[in-house]
Amino acid sequence: MMKIYTKKGDKGQTRIIGKKIVDKDDARVESYGTVDELNSWVGYTISVLTPETAVLKDELEGIQQLLFDAGTDLATLNDDPKRSFIFNVDSVKWLEGKIDTYTEAVPAVQKFILPGGNQPASALHVARTITRRAERHIVTLQGEDDINKDVLVFINRLSDYFFAVARYANMLGKNEDILYRNSKPVFR
Amino acid sequence: MMKIYTKKGDKGQTRIIGKKIVDKDDARVESYGTVDELNSWVGYTISVLTPETAVLKDELEGIQQLLFDAGTDLATLNDDPKRSFIFNVDSVKWLEGKIDTYTEAVPAVQKFILPGGNQPASALHVARTITRRAERHIVTLQGEDDINKDVLVFINRLSDYFFAVARYANMLGKNEDILYRNSKPVFR
Amino acid sequence: MMKIYTKKGDKGQTRIIGKKIVDKDDARVESYGTVDELNSWVGYTISVLTPETAVLKDELEGIQQLLFDAGTDLATLNDDPKRSFIFNVDSVKWLEGKIDTYTEAVPAVQKFILPGGNQPASALHVARTITRRAERHIVTLQGEDDINKDVLVFINRLSDYFFAVARYANMLGKNEDILYRNSKPVFR
Ligand code: B12
Ligand code: B12
Ligand code: B12
Ligand SMILES: C[C@H]1O[C@@H](n2cnc3c(N)ncnc32)[C@H](O)[C@@H]1O
Ligand SMILES: C[C@H]1O[C@@H](n2cnc3c(N)ncnc32)[C@H](O)[C@@H]1O
Ligand SMILES: C[C@H]1O[C@@H](n2cnc3c(N)ncnc32)[C@H](O)[C@@H]1O
Ligand SMILES: [Mg+2]
Ligand SMILES: [Mg+2]
Ligand SMILES: [Mg+2]
Repeated sequence: MMKIYTKKGDKGQTRIIGKKIVDKDDARVESYGTVDELNSWVGYTISVLTPETAVLKDELEGIQQLLFDAGTDLATLNDDPKRSFIFNVDSVKWLEGKIDTYTEAVPAVQKFILPGGNQPASALHVARTITRRAERHIVTLQGEDDINKDVLVFINRLSDYFFAVARYANMLGKNEDILYRNSKPVFR
Repeated sequence: MMKIYTKKGDKGQTRIIGKKIVDKDDARVESYGTVDELNSWVGYTISVLTPETAVLKDELEGIQQLLFDAGTDLATLNDDPKRSFIFNVDSVKWLEGKIDTYTEAVPAVQKFILPGGNQPASALHVARTITRRAERHIVTLQGEDDINKDVLVFINRLSDYFFAVARYANMLGKNEDILYRNSKPVFR
Repeated sequence: MMKIYTKKGDKGQTRIIGKKIVDKDDARVESYGTVDELNSWVGYTISVLTPETAVLKDELEGIQQLLFDAGTDLATLNDDPKRSFIFNVDSVKWLEGKIDTYTEAVPAVQKFILPGGNQPASALHVARTITRRAERHIVTLQGEDDINKDVLVFINRLSDYFFAVARYANMLGKNEDILYRNSKPVFR
């Protein structure tokens, strides 16, 4: 039987792709660790889809696949002599198309909305904020080492995608967004 | 159609209120970003309320509104010449009243309890710990820059509110709290 | 009536076990605060168990108990003259037995799998990644101060446990794992 516990990381260090050893609290490990947390949350979100929102399943699974690609690049050194980055701007374009579609389908808003609604929509708002947490860690990593910049663009766009699709999930479930009562007209 | 993706943040910087530009991993952005994550989690919690706990809906929505107010202040510079803080101590008093009500309604405990129970109660315990994570980031921000101190007091009290209301949600659902088996009598 | 809000922490500092005062964003408080978040998430996971996966309830509750023990040690100074660490390697051995059992029960995989599946399994994958986040904070703490090293070993093993039990929960629910499409054969 294969053992997944190799005990190698018991003292707080681990290997990235290419076998370099780093501390587990390295900005690089933080980055792909948070992408893994996001990926798991997307898996959880899929598991709470309702019949009305089930149409989103394949797309969210596609995002899980892309998050693994993003994680691979984050775990790879820019100057690794044997490997090059795999993530590219096509995934950004794909997301932008989805954002446009969903934004056109829902009623326009000028004010901030409360992140919530039905269960899938609320889970998608949580995904939005975990994506932004991952982005913050990737920005820290970028300050220390070279990264694949397309990954950062993708993650930035991904949080806007989750905003758009959360609103769409509420529309599918016939839930109306609630406005932040003290909001200025921020979306223009 | 309005585009929510402005592409301005694709390189890792962003604007706070008043248009100052900062890195996305700035303690200020971490703080209101985590408040946004908490806000989304509260939205999710509302979405899993059961008939027995549905009485909590309006109150939790009120907390979402207050979290936006708190976020606005965290995104504003103390010395911004055009804006002043909006959050004040009334919200703290309101929370304290709620905590007292719920604490009186549930059986007293002396020992730590396992965070769990029915689904709404468990989600409220998770909210409690995300609130405390937000508090830690706000404390870091406070070490770097002046903040609205009432926001910090509110967030501290909010985690105690979530503890009290989680216990109340378990009572509403007729779930008994399970004690931490090695606990000393810590609540006095 | 006992008041849980003592107002002592309103300015951003708090006490650890033994009464030493630290900032709330201290690596020590980050560590046991994240263990508390994980503990709450495990509580939430228990609350979404289905009839097919209900067999996991007692075991997960046992893990909540152990997480409290781990948190106690993390909140205690190594050189505290009155207290010694309580967590020991028996809990690690117990976890390893569980990992072996679950790994043998599920179909072997060579490639990374998408973290997801049914609701309990997906929640267990999220637990896996929060465990790893806690581990990263504990590694930071270890760089600053002496800790109980068995806690770190336990937390490392715990994320592998959650991987194994997530796969087991999918098997119980008759859900098949989906492979990461670009995965190399990483499990050997
Ligand atoms: C990055 C990484 C992750 C990332 C993955 C993804 C991502 N993209 O975001 C994250 C953080 C999500 C992750 C999670 C986990 N991981 Co991981 N991960 C790694 C790591 C560092 C690299 C894996 C990888 O992407 N390799 C792909 C390619 C690019 O790497 P490569 O080495 O260059 O590939 C070459 C060789 O593989 C060779 N090759 C290719 N095919 C074959 C076939 C054979 C037979 C041979 C001999 C060679 C060979 O040619 C390739 C091209 O050059 C490895 C450790 C390591 N340094 O290898 C652990 C590793 C694979 N992970 C491991 C484990 C246990 C896990 C988790 C279960 C941990 C947990 N408890 O959460 C989870 C499982 C996640 C899941 N959903 O399935 C273990 C597996 C142990 C085992 N028994 O095999 C490893 C080996 C680490 C360790 N402990 O030593 N992981
Ligand atoms: C703070 C902030 C947030 C916080 C908000 C809340 C909080 N309180 O915690 C958080 C982090 C939650 C957030 C989230 C999001 N945000 Co935001 N956010 C901002 C930010 C920095 C300030 C907004 C604000 O509070 N303004 C209120 C007042 C105080 O600001 P003000 O400028 O001083 O207001 C003056 C003017 O507005 C003027 N004014 C008032 N009314 C009008 C009307 C007209 C017609 C005119 C011309 C002027 C005017 O007078 C006001 C008083 O002085 C702006 C960027 C910026 N610097 O403005 C982005 C911004 C509004 N956000 C944006 C986006 C996209 C989002 C998200 C969708 C991102 C995401 N994917 O998650 C979410 C949506 C959240 C939701 N639930 O709806 C975009 C909107 C883009 C667009 N097309 O309009 C902006 C513009 C940032 C950007 N990309 O450039 N955000
Ligand atoms: C560590 C800690 C936590 C950890 C706990 C666990 C862990 N293991 O991971 C975490 C972060 C999870 C936590 C959470 C919370 N905590 Co706390 N926590 C503490 C802390 C720092 C230590 C508690 C502890 O473990 N004591 C155990 C032993 C080892 O400590 P000890 O002092 O050495 O024990 C001696 C004495 O107690 C004495 N003794 C024993 N029995 C008795 C009996 C009597 C009558 C007397 C006089 C003496 C006595 O002998 C013991 C052995 O030497 C205390 C503050 C402090 N410094 O004491 C707060 C404290 C207990 N927590 C408090 C609160 C409010 C909470 C939360 C509700 C906060 C929140 N909103 O989330 C939650 C509740 C969690 C739950 N699920 O029940 C408050 C309780 C206030 C009150 N009215 O009593 C305290 C007192 C902090 C404060 N505000 O001042 N907490
Ligand atoms: C909508 C607003 O959110 C803030 N913002 C931009 N990126 C992030 C992130 N990763 N995390 C938290 N907040 C962010 C900026 O202030 C932006 O203007
Ligand atoms: C109940 C105990 O929790 C700890 N504590 C207080 N505030 C926080 C926070 N924001 N995050 C984590 N732990 C905290 C202190 O040690 C307190 O005594
Ligand atoms: C499976 C892979 O996950 C990474 N790894 C090991 N520990 C952690 C952690 N606590 N958080 C995030 N990533 C981690 C290492 O790169 C390991 O090889
Ligand atoms: Mg953005
Ligand atoms: Mg407190
Ligand atoms: Mg490990």
